[in-house]
Amino acid sequence: MEKFFNARSIAVIGVSEAADNLGRIMALNLMAFGYTGLVHLVGSQGGVLLGHRIYMSVSEIPHDIDLATVLVPASAVPEVLLDCARKGIRRIVVQSGGFGELGEERKGLEEDIRRILDEYGIRLIGPNCLGVINRQNGLAVPFLPLEPEAPAGVVSIVTQSGGVGAQILNDLGAEGIGFGKFASIGNKLDVNEADILDYFVRDGETGIIYCYLEGIAAGRRLMEIAAASSKPIILHKANTSRWGGVIARSHSTSLAADDAVVDAALRQCGVFRVKSRHDAMSAVKAFLLPPMRGNRLAVISRSGGHAVMAADAAGFHGFDLPPFPEGRIACMRSESRAGVVCMQNPMDLGDVYYLPAYLTLLQETLNAPETDGIVFIFNYQRGFFGEDCRRFLIELDRLAATAQKPLAICLFANEAEYRWVRKRARMPIFHDPASAVEALALSRDFYRRKILPLPSVRPFAVDPAPLIRKAPKGEAPRSVPPEELASLAASYGIPLVGWERAGSEDEAVAAAGRIGFPVVLKTAREDVIHKSEAGAVFLDLHDESAVRRAYVALRELSPSVLVQLMAPEGVEWFVGGRQDAHFGPVLVSGLGGIYVEAFGRVSLRVCPLSEAEARSMLDECFGSALLSGLRGRPPLDRDGLVRIMTRLSWLLSDLRNIGEVDFNPVRVYPERCLVVDWRATADVEI
Amino acid sequence: MEKFFNARSIAVIGVSEAADNLGRIMALNLMAFGYTGLVHLVGSQGGVLLGHRIYMSVSEIPHDIDLATVLVPASAVPEVLLDCARKGIRRIVVQSGGFGELGEERKGLEEDIRRILDEYGIRLIGPNCLGVINRQNGLAVPFLPLEPEAPAGVVSIVTQSGGVGAQILNDLGAEGIGFGKFASIGNKLDVNEADILDYFVRDGETGIIYCYLEGIAAGRRLMEIAAASSKPIILHKANTSRWGGVIARSHSTSLAADDAVVDAALRQCGVFRVKSRHDAMSAVKAFLLPPMRGNRLAVISRSGGHAVMAADAAGFHGFDLPPFPEGRIACMRSESRAGVVCMQNPMDLGDVYYLPAYLTLLQETLNAPETDGIVFIFNYQRGFFGEDCRRFLIELDRLAATAQKPLAICLFANEAEYRWVRKRARMPIFHDPASAVEALALSRDFYRRKILPLPSVRPFAVDPAPLIRKAPKGEAPRSVPPEELASLAASYGIPLVGWERAGSEDEAVAAAGRIGFPVVLKTAREDVIHKSEAGAVFLDLHDESAVRRAYVALRELSPSVLVQLMAPEGVEWFVGGRQDAHFGPVLVSGLGGIYVEAFGRVSLRVCPLSEAEARSMLDECFGSALLSGLRGRPPLDRDGLVRIMTRLSWLLSDLRNIGEVDFNPVRVYPERCLVVDWRATADVEI
Repeated sequence: MEKFFNARSIAVIGVSEAADNLGRIMALNLMAFGYTGLVHLVGSQGGVLLGHRIYMSVSEIPHDIDLATVLVPASAVPEVLLDCARKGIRRIVVQSGGFGELGEERKGLEEDIRRILDEYGIRLIGPNCLGVINRQNGLAVPFLPLEPEAPAGVVSIVTQSGGVGAQILNDLGAEGIGFGKFASIGNKLDVNEADILDYFVRDGETGIIYCYLEGIAAGRRLMEIAAASSKPIILHKANTSRWGGVIARSHSTSLAADDAVVDAALRQCGVFRVKSRHDAMSAVKAFLLPPMRGNRLAVISRSGGHAVMAADAAGFHGFDLPPFPEGRIACMRSESRAGVVCMQNPMDLGDVYYLPAYLTLLQETLNAPETDGIVFIFNYQRGFFGEDCRRFLIELDRLAATAQKPLAICLFANEAEYRWVRKRARMPIFHDPASAVEALALSRDFYRRKILPLPSVRPFAVDPAPLIRKAPKGEAPRSVPPEELASLAASYGIPLVGWERAGSEDEAVAAAGRIGFPVVLKTAREDVIHKSEAGAVFLDLHDESAVRRAYVALRELSPSVLVQLMAPEGVEWFVGGRQDAHFGPVLVSGLGGIYVEAFGRVSLRVCPLSEAEARSMLDECFGSALLSGLRGRPPLDRDGLVRIMTRLSWLLSDLRNIGEVDFNPVRVYPERCLVVDWRATADVEI
Repeated sequence: MEKFFNARSIAVIGVSEAADNLGRIMALNLMAFGYTGLVHLVGSQGGVLLGHRIYMSVSEIPHDIDLATVLVPASAVPEVLLDCARKGIRRIVVQSGGFGELGEERKGLEEDIRRILDEYGIRLIGPNCLGVINRQNGLAVPFLPLEPEAPAGVVSIVTQSGGVGAQILNDLGAEGIGFGKFASIGNKLDVNEADILDYFVRDGETGIIYCYLEGIAAGRRLMEIAAASSKPIILHKANTSRWGGVIARSHSTSLAADDAVVDAALRQCGVFRVKSRHDAMSAVKAFLLPPMRGNRLAVISRSGGHAVMAADAAGFHGFDLPPFPEGRIACMRSESRAGVVCMQNPMDLGDVYYLPAYLTLLQETLNAPETDGIVFIFNYQRGFFGEDCRRFLIELDRLAATAQKPLAICLFANEAEYRWVRKRARMPIFHDPASAVEALALSRDFYRRKILPLPSVRPFAVDPAPLIRKAPKGEAPRSVPPEELASLAASYGIPLVGWERAGSEDEAVAAAGRIGFPVVLKTAREDVIHKSEAGAVFLDLHDESAVRRAYVALRELSPSVLVQLMAPEGVEWFVGGRQDAHFGPVLVSGLGGIYVEAFGRVSLRVCPLSEAEARSMLDECFGSALLSGLRGRPPLDRDGLVRIMTRLSWLLSDLRNIGEVDFNPVRVYPERCLVVDWRATADVEI
């Protein structure tokens, strides 16, 4: 990636003298940002632009070229790439649109490009993108006219959409927040978000990473990179809905991922996911402040109402608000004009108008051992000691810059005042007391988070596992027969309830005798999924004659039946899993039996799972209180459930041709767990 | 209220010649806003200010005064009020702080004021507030220097906090949204939010009402006013947490209300509750647009990425996105430069740069019968056809102003461009595709909402209900004996499981015989609440000897036991209620038995309930799918449950000295419901 961002010479391909030519804007951007390398312009019409000759082809350029940018009609791109390849160019940004995003018939063009990349060892960003910027050396090739409003800084950006990328730069500019590097990657034909992330994580000039994605190209690689990163990664992943999928496919060729899996995967690897530009900007500001290392917050506000909002948010995010020491309170009270002030934490500054006292209060609170961070809310109107307020804010900026603890500043002033401050102060400014508190909560949680890496060693032995045959090509996914799945479960040490298959009435009776009464009889037909509705299950059969009667009834569906021990009542859990197209095997768990349907709430993780991760999964499960033994009931076998979860997670990781597994219900007793019903499908051969 | 907002003469009391005098700012505000009435200044030091004589007392003023504003030290307020009263002034705003918000010892001062108000029939706003503004006639008495940035308009504001009020005015100004009337009501000693709301609802110049509250003074009156209002009411209610309560008490004397009750009450009366200034501004913009009368949305965007975000939001809010007709698509496609455009809904305008075509597309889409509203996203950079874009936006503003359907416009441009547009265009501008979509969802839901008024007639007869005795003064709330509660339940037609009290072993056996085996025996001791943990319940007793054994075991706790029919297993529901300090009787319902604890999710309403409201409550209940009969089980007696809920809601409304009632569990069977355990407390005499 280095050469993309630190190229010493660039060829801009697709330039003409026309006023509305987009290549011209790239050339202008390189000048506006003060690019320190050589710029060469290329366009089939030739001519002169901005004092540069426009070469008819890259082959005419008498210099080595580190990076080419290409904005020509899609159909002409392969030829231009070949020209570049022959010229020895190995880093290319293709900004042209008109590829896979317009439909299947354009995929051929993408295949042509891929062949050229492979043959010449070229790395390509795009197509259908805005390109890259390096704020430090002025390398800026987007075809939108950018104004370098945002100063150089530590935030680096990777975005699929160019339009969203431009908006992010505007947002940072409006908040006075500097950025470092920028990459819009469009269709991700070659370079994808993981490549850029990997580079940003190692880049010395990047401190915070901000991503906007519509699709995930390499889920597990992204997880590995993120889990190893000490830099905060903020990710806005769109394309989460049916309608989003419609437009995302035609915008950046991205298919919608299962959003619950994306959520789980990002949490597992410590990526901070946001749902809007507003949340993203709050997160950026949070990470620009020193870390919030504890849970003790001081709230100080010019306005009582805003103090209430901050206090509500502090309650919501579980902060402690320890009282201020008496001395500090007495000192502030002495500044009150009419005693209309009630000093506590949260502190409403009431009628204390002497601004130097604010600075002293803030400095002392920053120094105080009982405080981990401060939210300070200031509002003023230009017409009421406006000059004093401006001077105070400049001092406040100095204080915030040297603070070792986060001082989150929320400012309310009219727009013109806000702009005045924004131009002169470097501190992040929040626009809502709740956002300021939330930012400190986010910082606290980020620096406190424990990332449990995907385990690489299984904590148990596996007996040689049977191979699972795929379904033949062209057929539906194959239902795995109960014997096959049971033998797999046994290899992985997953406890199933006692069962046997029987093919006749007498075999059923004999099996029941071996298993022990009472038993359950159900059809072995694999196409009957909701067996109770279909009258295909007989419960609680206490003797031979009951078994015989049940068999006769079931025979109509199939002569083959399953005889199972009638497991005692217990809390029912669900443990299942499947292969996700973007993140590989995932495990799903939650309250089982009919509650899966009644509540529809499950917890999810990318596999394999460590026992600690499985436990955290149970902790967050809806209804997990039932496992602890409510109202004096004994606690249930949580450890056994954790074992089933981790073992199934390894099974799914080992046998990637198992498409889906459902253990539902798993009965959880005080002393053990038993899988009472099981079902699995195998993938289709490709 | 009329005289507060339309006073023809004002006395500003608390003015001096000092530079930092706050009364001076009030006088300046009246001038800045162009107040059309007479202004008289009053201050104990006398002097001259802004060409006006400062009277030493209101009594010196040789004119009639409609309204006085008072900003003097708290202790001097009663005397000033008496002066005003003698002068015949009947409308007063007291802005001074230093009353109940500083603690109990200042409550006496408030009592003094209340006596003066009663004696002279004065209405008072405040104390501890910013006062009122009428943008139309320039009556503006806040003591913060305001700049009349926001034009006159239809948004009227009622706020407790002055600081938050000033911020709301700034926010509206920054968005170019006009306001009509403004009231900051502080401690609400006399005039409260319901008074102001009532006035705004009837005020011809108010179209949208925006409230910020920390406490609710008259919950049920507020509900009545809101339910009858055809104007949207947006309410930001803060003070929802422990920490919020600490500061709200000392800021505006507001006690925290039970936030779940506030939520339910506001939903019941159709108030739109917001949690932040950002959401409030989105809601204001939503209501400034024409109503969204259906569910069919068109999304049109300059940038593909923003179209994805809008589409995700459309999916989340359940919008339909019908396809555009072929003709309109063909027309746009003909404007595409390189065919890099995929025309559908959501529509990414791709490389269509011809702006007049956008206007045609928008106009046609507004006219189209298959569209109920449009989200249009436009982004541009000044340097790329910036003048054309500006002209286009002015045209767009005209189009939006005449549209009969909502056209929600989301604009991305740098700050300076945004300000340029904001100054010249009247259309509301959204800052995020998701906010624009959310605003249309909010409009759709608002104009579709059905407010079920609190019923005034009970749908059933009540046998004369026994009076419930309160607990004597100084004692704890009284536990209502089972006989008393059972007889109450019978009067209201609420079905309890068969039961009797027994005082000896033989009585228990006889009772069981009358009730029918199997039975349950439990202690009648009222202080044992969780009876199963305490070993105070014996279930499923099938014969006389089992009853005798259970009686002997229970006798140690108390000789008095309850004998109950052992109700068959069934889905367990919870129905309960209590008296809320702000909203009166409320009903609570949800999954019962141990699930109340396991899930902690219940649904809540202010009483009494119509059957329709009770049904809507069940619909939103967590786990309500269990009532419909999952997986082929028969549906359960939802109607019976609805009857128990409505009847209990009337019981709580009729008998306000019942503090709390719990029916838990109510067993729900296919053909009926049975209350299996019941408990109630009666309030303490005052």
